[in-house]
Amino acid sequence: MKVLVVHAHPEAKSFTSAMKSAAVDVLTAAGHSIEVTDLYALNFNPVANAADFGAPKNDEYLVYALEQRHGFETGTLSADILTEVEKVRRCDLLLLTFPIYWFSTPAILKGWIDRVFVSGAFYGGRRIYDRGAMVGKKALVCATLGGRQSMVCDGGIHGDLAMMLRPLLQGTLGYVGFDVLEPFFAYHVPYIQHQERTEILNAWRASLGALEHRPAMQMPALADFDETLSRRLSSECLGTT
Amino acid sequence: MKVLVVHAHPEAKSFTSAMKSAAVDVLTAAGHSIEVTDLYALNFNPVANAADFGAPKNDEYLVYALEQRHGFETGTLSADILTEVEKVRRCDLLLLTFPIYWFSTPAILKGWIDRVFVSGAFYGGRRIYDRGAMVGKKALVCATLGGRQSMVCDGGIHGDLAMMLRPLLQGTLGYVGFDVLEPFFAYHVPYIQHQERTEILNAWRASLGALEHRPAMQMPALADFDETLSRRLSSECLGTT
Repeated sequence: MKVLVVHAHPEAKSFTSAMKSAAVDVLTAAGHSIEVTDLYALNFNPVANAADFGAPKNDEYLVYALEQRHGFETGTLSADILTEVEKVRRCDLLLLTFPIYWFSTPAILKGWIDRVFVSGAFYGGRRIYDRGAMVGKKALVCATLGGRQSMVCDGGIHGDLAMMLRPLLQGTLGYVGFDVLEPFFAYHVPYIQHQERTEILNAWRASLGALEHRPAMQMPALADFDETLSRRLSSECLGTT
Repeated sequence: MKVLVVHAHPEAKSFTSAMKSAAVDVLTAAGHSIEVTDLYALNFNPVANAADFGAPKNDEYLVYALEQRHGFETGTLSADILTEVEKVRRCDLLLLTFPIYWFSTPAILKGWIDRVFVSGAFYGGRRIYDRGAMVGKKALVCATLGGRQSMVCDGGIHGDLAMMLRPLLQGTLGYVGFDVLEPFFAYHVPYIQHQERTEILNAWRASLGALEHRPAMQMPALADFDETLSRRLSSECLGTT
């Protein structure tokens, strides 16, 4: 497999960075080829902006998604975006490693998505979910957080963490067609000791060694929705069969 | 009321920007005082970084939330953060105006949250939701999107939009204690005509004129959760009363 690891942590010695490094080690040892986009190390610009388009279709009025489509078709997207687009397009597995900030990605990773998941190249119109351009590729989220599992589960004060991350898991990765594997979460990270961190790292390494058995999350299928993308009433319900 | 408008759109002539300007007009005419943080105009830096802390507690190993707490206590947060923190602390209503990118805020706004919603000043430990530091203030989200309402409702392919925005509405604004008013959404914006945009702007102006009647979303209450922040089983369920 070709693996693209996109990593977003401001501290190179962090536990999240250790999770990233463990992934690179395990996947390399298993014979996969790895590319890493370390967003902080690259000083990646996360701000979607008119300067992203070298030859805009309309330089008087920016509609970002329309310029993405035009920029991709004409090969005039800015170089930093194009580099990342090509990395994603050639990977078989996209692995995101980051600390959860406000039940979401850090801004630098959100901006990588805003700028790199280009309309036209990744999705367009009804080419989403099982018709998205990334169909056939897998995506895996590995995220760390300060909270305990008891706070971010059904019955926890914030609710289920994977539900909280639905904008990323479904609304982004699933949307463009990835098979989204069940995410891996490391809880309570700033407050635990070496032994517990070692256990988490071991569990993470074991997960990576068994990726082919890791279940994918259920995503919407276009065939279940009508032309307005509302759910079709089944013909049995309507009594028309 | 003191109102802080935080606006994030890369095109100053956009419909989202018109929504922001309409808010400033209507709220000013109603006698409120308004401050605006226009993130693109400010060229706001959205990347949480070691440079955010003038006198870090630990300059060898960055734990972002811990440095936020220390930086706030010692008054050594970077000036751009401190300016925004003070704006939020003195407002009665926080209004966010932005286009939805990937079922979430644009990165520049996500980074405003990452850097400005400072641990210690906005929340800490169990000082969250109805015990968060922003209790007594209101927050309102006004967001535009390309999608139609039929795609982002119950039964739509992406599910309910307010559920998709739960990381922001509950996990961020509710978390720090704001009364989170029902959000205002403008659908299908790049594809509609002048007449329909005018109707949306009129509805938005009318909403702003009736803010005191706008319902707040339900948020968790700390009293319903135990010390691990799991939901308490009611004493009736346990049969112990």
